[in-house]
Amino acid sequence: MIPIVSIVGKSDSGKTTLIEKLVPEINRRAYRVATVKHDVHGFEVDKEGKDSWRHRKAGTHSTAISSPKQLALIRDMDHDAPLEEIRNRFIQDVDIIIAEGYKKDKEAKVEVFRKEVHQEPLCTREDNLVALVSNQHFDLGVPCLDLNDVKGLADIIEQSFLKKKTPERVHLKVNGENIPLKPFIDALIRNSVKGIISSLKNCDKPEKIEITIC
Amino acid sequence: MIPIVSIVGKSDSGKTTLIEKLVPEINRRAYRVATVKHDVHGFEVDKEGKDSWRHRKAGTHSTAISSPKQLALIRDMDHDAPLEEIRNRFIQDVDIIIAEGYKKDKEAKVEVFRKEVHQEPLCTREDNLVALVSNQHFDLGVPCLDLNDVKGLADIIEQSFLKKKTPERVHLKVNGENIPLKPFIDALIRNSVKGIISSLKNCDKPEKIEITIC
Repeated sequence: MIPIVSIVGKSDSGKTTLIEKLVPEINRRAYRVATVKHDVHGFEVDKEGKDSWRHRKAGTHSTAISSPKQLALIRDMDHDAPLEEIRNRFIQDVDIIIAEGYKKDKEAKVEVFRKEVHQEPLCTREDNLVALVSNQHFDLGVPCLDLNDVKGLADIIEQSFLKKKTPERVHLKVNGENIPLKPFIDALIRNSVKGIISSLKNCDKPEKIEITIC
Repeated sequence: MIPIVSIVGKSDSGKTTLIEKLVPEINRRAYRVATVKHDVHGFEVDKEGKDSWRHRKAGTHSTAISSPKQLALIRDMDHDAPLEEIRNRFIQDVDIIIAEGYKKDKEAKVEVFRKEVHQEPLCTREDNLVALVSNQHFDLGVPCLDLNDVKGLADIIEQSFLKKKTPERVHLKVNGENIPLKPFIDALIRNSVKGIISSLKNCDKPEKIEITIC
């Protein structure tokens, strides 16, 4: 399961600026990063007049543009998806997800604070806060790092999320709905599937198994 | 499995224009459409200066922008993905995929031809051609429809791809690689998984089952 850390903070606190510095620092440590930007007001990404823009305008539910180096997907949603859903449905091939702007999500958080623009931080430790990055010291029971200490923040993220192996788990969806699994059923499905596929070619060291039946 | 039809044709034959007319016609019949545009030269979708653009610029592998009504994903690819891979990894929640520009892909094709710009069609029936949409008649052994006969084309697509149920199959990926399955193994995995989950809540009528073990 790809770990998620959300960079939160009141408006204009410097969330995007921190992410711009943090991503290359995590890349330098040989991890691949995905970011997720929360945009409650809606957005426009494609360019007017382009073929893909014309497809969307004609009423598609989803439009993908695929090239040998990049793929883009723009699709309708019928709800504001939590980070866990975005990870499970849309993000692959990365080591960590850094989110921006998910204050109310349950995932781990790093808050950015600048005393020039605000009086008090947004989070308490109860908000699943991992660190505060700030130019003023606050004792929130978590490390308080200087605004420029990107290496220190990457150290904390690496230790807490990238070097700690999360236990293997089964994620089951039926007709698009997540089905919660008790530990016994989780183990039953996991062991049955691993047993059946174990003798297939290229399946001797499965780190990720994906099965779709439809 | 979501059916795929590719709209092909030589350059400037009117592929995007046909898709602009076809998508609303399929929508009117209460099906949800995804389109896939092949762009071999690479593309730029995001807007300079936006937060998500800054994330990408900082070196992310993937960046998603999520709002309650829309989700966009822009990600790195290390190869020119065939339509089957794009469907299996990225497209969900639609009834049909209409692709543009996948001449060499194995999926079913509709060719657009305009005599003003070209002498001869691109495809033969061997190219898995389903119909020719043209302002000049050619006998390619498939229906030849008038350029403006969008309803006729939607009829063919509806009959051939939307009303015909494809048999249930297992798609297995291990460590990101597709693993081909012989019919016996396909049935073994399918029946084992369906048997195990059959007594779970909300799993009595599974039309699509997705399991991820990691």
